[in-house]
Amino acid sequence: MELGNKERSLVSKVMDGLISGIVEERYGAILPPQDVLSKEFDVSRTVMREALSMLLARHMLDVRPKIGTRIRPMRDWRMIDEDVVNWRFRAKPDNTFLRDVIEFRGSIEPAACALAAERANAADIAGIRDAFEALRQIDVNDPGFQTADALLHTRILAASGNQFYQQMAAIMRGALSLVNPIINAREGGWENVLAAHERVVDAIERRAPKEAEAAARAMIEFTAEELSHAFAPNALPHHEQPLEQR
Amino acid sequence: MELGNKERSLVSKVMDGLISGIVEERYGAILPPQDVLSKEFDVSRTVMREALSMLLARHMLDVRPKIGTRIRPMRDWRMIDEDVVNWRFRAKPDNTFLRDVIEFRGSIEPAACALAAERANAADIAGIRDAFEALRQIDVNDPGFQTADALLHTRILAASGNQFYQQMAAIMRGALSLVNPIINAREGGWENVLAAHERVVDAIERRAPKEAEAAARAMIEFTAEELSHAFAPNALPHHEQPLEQR
Repeated sequence: MELGNKERSLVSKVMDGLISGIVEERYGAILPPQDVLSKEFDVSRTVMREALSMLLARHMLDVRPKIGTRIRPMRDWRMIDEDVVNWRFRAKPDNTFLRDVIEFRGSIEPAACALAAERANAADIAGIRDAFEALRQIDVNDPGFQTADALLHTRILAASGNQFYQQMAAIMRGALSLVNPIINAREGGWENVLAAHERVVDAIERRAPKEAEAAARAMIEFTAEELSHAFAPNALPHHEQPLEQR
Repeated sequence: MELGNKERSLVSKVMDGLISGIVEERYGAILPPQDVLSKEFDVSRTVMREALSMLLARHMLDVRPKIGTRIRPMRDWRMIDEDVVNWRFRAKPDNTFLRDVIEFRGSIEPAACALAAERANAADIAGIRDAFEALRQIDVNDPGFQTADALLHTRILAASGNQFYQQMAAIMRGALSLVNPIINAREGGWENVLAAHERVVDAIERRAPKEAEAAARAMIEFTAEELSHAFAPNALPHHEQPLEQR
């Protein structure tokens, strides 16, 4: 019923062997069938199935009916453990966590927006515009609000063309799920942030990297400011500095 | 021998229940013993053990002899799947991957260096200086070279105090393992990069965030330049722009 220690270490060994074969391009685009692989590695089909399932879960392989087990492009391999990210963002945040989230967004999203303005193709830009228009239409209390906002941010990261920024989308979605309810609880909070989103989208469309970067930075500073209102209600009404510098 | 589908879905359910308990702070610092948890969740000890081992592997728990299973601080929870990162960096890089690595380092390391200059405590700074002096002493062909360089970068990221930059250390180590052999193959390549490291360390010690950020940016640009020599041997001898803008 359970994999014993011996089987576990066999699974690790097989995974390592499969990876070596993949990174050294010893297989083509499609892995040999499971029973061929089991023989090649001299392990049971159970162990081979377990090893393959570990790689499937990490988006390194996918199973195509009638074709077989395809090796996915390396840029798709999941470096982020999305379960842990989701769990982490479910916990009640403290001020340090909010500060860290804002700082991290500040080092990813403006850079990604600048690259999107340079590299996005026509389909990327149409997708970004569509996601923004959908977000503009949706009420902050609509159950689809979070998904709509996440889609816009994810599409911008994708359009950057940089696979690391693309991988960070899971963290950015976690950040949005954390900060949006805080922003939306305050009268006018979302309107400010939405206007900032629009300036980002406009700049990407006009293929103006510096403006896209500055607009993204302003978007995150608005967010930080909204958070500071929520977390320090007696603070002065206006702040020049983002949250992390206070 | 293998967990069946039913047990697998039970394990997921138990993990989710444990996480809920943890993020809602229903347990103290130490989880109840395994047999108590098995009864609480009404599952076999095998299923409970499997669920706990999944959380252990993600640095969410640790086992302390005589004390029990401790819930680790959330900032330690591993959002990065280090296996995938290591595998990804084992593959032969193409130009797009190198460009993406340099861009990503450029959005993380300068910001982390600036924060380290602000936030590092005396022990952090001593650790950074020690790691730098060890790196200065070591020959690029020494088998410990890679570890020494990785330690310096990891300590700087840790000193930033930002848990997301800290988590990115695994990717930065992968990046160094990729670019260092390329840099070290070229006469004088490492000397340039080492001098840039020294300016970063000096600026952190002097608690000069802007200088630390600029020095880190220069360090990454040197690296990008060395890579461009390696990958474009007929290019002009000097470049003003980092790799990704060519």
